Amino acid sequence: MSQPHTVEIINLGDELLVGIRENSHLQYLGQQLAKYGLPVTRAQVITDDLAAIQEAFTAAWACADVVITTGGLGPTSDDLTREAVATALEIELVYDASIESVIRDRFAALGRTMAEHHRKQCYCFKNGLVLPNDQGTAPGLIYQADGKMLIMLPGPTHELRPMFERQVLPILQLEGHLSDEPAYLQLRTCGAGESTIEAKLQSLLETHLDLSIAYCVHYGIVDVRLSSRDGTLKMSKLKEIGHAARQQLGEDFVCFGDCSLAAVVYRELRALDRTLAVAESCTGGLLGDAFTNVPGASKAFLGGVICYSNDVKVTLLGVPDSLLEQHGAVSAECAIAMATGSAERLSADYGLSITGFAGPEGGNKDNPLGTIHIGYHSPVGVWCKTVRYTGGRLDVKARAVHAALDWMRRKIRKYKFEEFLSYSASD
Amino acid sequence: MSQPHTVEIINLGDELLVGIRENSHLQYLGQQLAKYGLPVTRAQVITDDLAAIQEAFTAAWACADVVITTGGLGPTSDDLTREAVATALEIELVYDASIESVIRDRFAALGRTMAEHHRKQCYCFKNGLVLPNDQGTAPGLIYQADGKMLIMLPGPTHELRPMFERQVLPILQLEGHLSDEPAYLQLRTCGAGESTIEAKLQSLLETHLDLSIAYCVHYGIVDVRLSSRDGTLKMSKLKEIGHAARQQLGEDFVCFGDCSLAAVVYRELRALDRTLAVAESCTGGLLGDAFTNVPGASKAFLGGVICYSNDVKVTLLGVPDSLLEQHGAVSAECAIAMATGSAERLSADYGLSITGFAGPEGGNKDNPLGTIHIGYHSPVGVWCKTVRYTGGRLDVKARAVHAALDWMRRKIRKYKFEEFLSYSASD
Repeated sequence: MSQPHTVEIINLGDELLVGIRENSHLQYLGQQLAKYGLPVTRAQVITDDLAAIQEAFTAAWACADVVITTGGLGPTSDDLTREAVATALEIELVYDASIESVIRDRFAALGRTMAEHHRKQCYCFKNGLVLPNDQGTAPGLIYQADGKMLIMLPGPTHELRPMFERQVLPILQLEGHLSDEPAYLQLRTCGAGESTIEAKLQSLLETHLDLSIAYCVHYGIVDVRLSSRDGTLKMSKLKEIGHAARQQLGEDFVCFGDCSLAAVVYRELRALDRTLAVAESCTGGLLGDAFTNVPGASKAFLGGVICYSNDVKVTLLGVPDSLLEQHGAVSAECAIAMATGSAERLSADYGLSITGFAGPEGGNKDNPLGTIHIGYHSPVGVWCKTVRYTGGRLDVKARAVHAALDWMRRKIRKYKFEEFLSYSASD
Repeated sequence: MSQPHTVEIINLGDELLVGIRENSHLQYLGQQLAKYGLPVTRAQVITDDLAAIQEAFTAAWACADVVITTGGLGPTSDDLTREAVATALEIELVYDASIESVIRDRFAALGRTMAEHHRKQCYCFKNGLVLPNDQGTAPGLIYQADGKMLIMLPGPTHELRPMFERQVLPILQLEGHLSDEPAYLQLRTCGAGESTIEAKLQSLLETHLDLSIAYCVHYGIVDVRLSSRDGTLKMSKLKEIGHAARQQLGEDFVCFGDCSLAAVVYRELRALDRTLAVAESCTGGLLGDAFTNVPGASKAFLGGVICYSNDVKVTLLGVPDSLLEQHGAVSAECAIAMATGSAERLSADYGLSITGFAGPEGGNKDNPLGTIHIGYHSPVGVWCKTVRYTGGRLDVKARAVHAALDWMRRKIRKYKFEEFLSYSASD
């Protein structure tokens, strides 16, 4: 690509403007396109109104190389996009009998007949492309003229995403709008703040004048995206710089790409052929949920106990009554007992526990609101760590889970060799 | 309000265009404004570029009554919004020493001194308003001219939301841009599809010609928003229609507003003064997470067992080995045993369980991928229900949790009187 192409996204749908639904299409398409070197220049959400659609398309078509729309291709009367766009850009719509036969077959397979109003979905642009939709009735549409490309995608996420990845991306690459290789390299870090990570990577910017670094923070994770400011650094060079960055980051480095912390811990456990159990008080199941979002998790994750009440801590995890009386349920001592209890009661090699005050009520002098104790039981030792967060109940829960997973990741990497030996010895 | 005002939202920030962050501001602001009768007409996301900002603002200011911006008020060099907007709209920026002293105090309280680059945050519009920010350094800014209003809000969510609710909403109401009372009434339903709900409410549309009904579907929940097409139906009338709608919806009605299913079940439990335990296999903690997102949940929710492996089902929940051998872990029989086991082992009045194949692997002839069995143990009986979903692992988990909560909601309401009696008898 000689110079970067501009791309504009137009999301249609009143539900995006009145807060009924979040605009996840913009995030998804922005990420997909940025990955291959085509950052979105502008995005608009407009109402399903004829004049608004025409105005937006005329303006977008005048200044962007690629215009992508989402939604408005449905069969109902308020789906006006196809017609409005054709009028605005002066493209002829033609009836395509093959689209109709696909829609008819789709309904027939469900034992239903195609309703008359689906006929409007059978129109496509003259000399344009039709993108088959195996998840719904509305096909996607592509129109090209003057080196520009208009791409119209259906609104439902499960129809849009496979269509974009399997059909649209290859076309954009073939037409030279998108690069064949990713435009940035992502390093995921956890446990240090954005400014700390920035300071650690400062020297790279001084050595590589063309390097651009972007940061994104979410619940204790800081993602670092390395890219070339003007396209002179190729991916092979970015990978070289990425490995230097990894050295600078030390233990804060989690992985290249966007693996979840739970998936990283899961891989460490698989490498050691070990199992894990959890015990959760204030996070109430969110830690277990994180592990079970990893496909195949059952190979290493046995389960856990959500011990919201003190009685459950005692009966299911064997936390001593006297410990709870002396130190309370939100204490380092209880976290340790919970971690060990979960490993023992569930016959797991490792136990990971969380107890704390997530808010909005609770807390005391020693353990104010937002205090979280994490317990870690492993074949080579038992540890506890205390962290403290501000924010709402849901924020504190999410941060506590990330903190526990990140801490286990560090511990298991640090003691990997010893743990491997202890394993060999115990067999 | 004589006629509806138009509002345009401009979100600034490259991170929204390249998929680093979702644009949650649009959903939040759209919902807040729609609630009080001011639906957003258009929304744009633009890059932090001087020309792009000026073009967008000139166009927006020409046609909208209210323009709201998010982001771009930070201290760094790429935060250009304040200056670009002032130039585009020909408003003078003036230095406000009182802003500086607030920022200085803020840093002093943290034991730091204000850096020079924060000086740019001390500029505000001449004859404009300054909105204090108690969560960060950037104050919000308001400018009014010709009956139009420009509102500039800081980008971080925890700064924007309290500023909008506490400061901006009252100003919009005082200036007559927003109505004082909500513009729609929401009914939450669960368990029936959008078309079924639509059919049930069809007669209301025939009786009330001015009524408008909008639907939003998420993981088995269908929200119904009743509003007035042209403003002639007041909230008191909408409430009357809402109660008629509730009758039509029957058991599918969950609540008015947007209470979570877990919160609704929690309230039923509190009304009966009863407790609950859960047992989760494929949802891995997500059901417990849903309950513990409800503030004060510990009054009714004791905890649960995440029994990802069969051994845990046997040892912690007392599911018989023979049952697992005969019927398998994904079976109605196992769901029942898990529900009863959780109630017994955690000494709870109710037990709710989920077992199934969430994918991407697993499934067999009788229980294909996406099959979910839900078990329910109560003081007046034990039941099981089987549902089946398509979709990815995370979708199936989320839908399974909603199905379990919705089913418990129906059961507990249906047997409320009997359960109350059984309670009195057992005491």
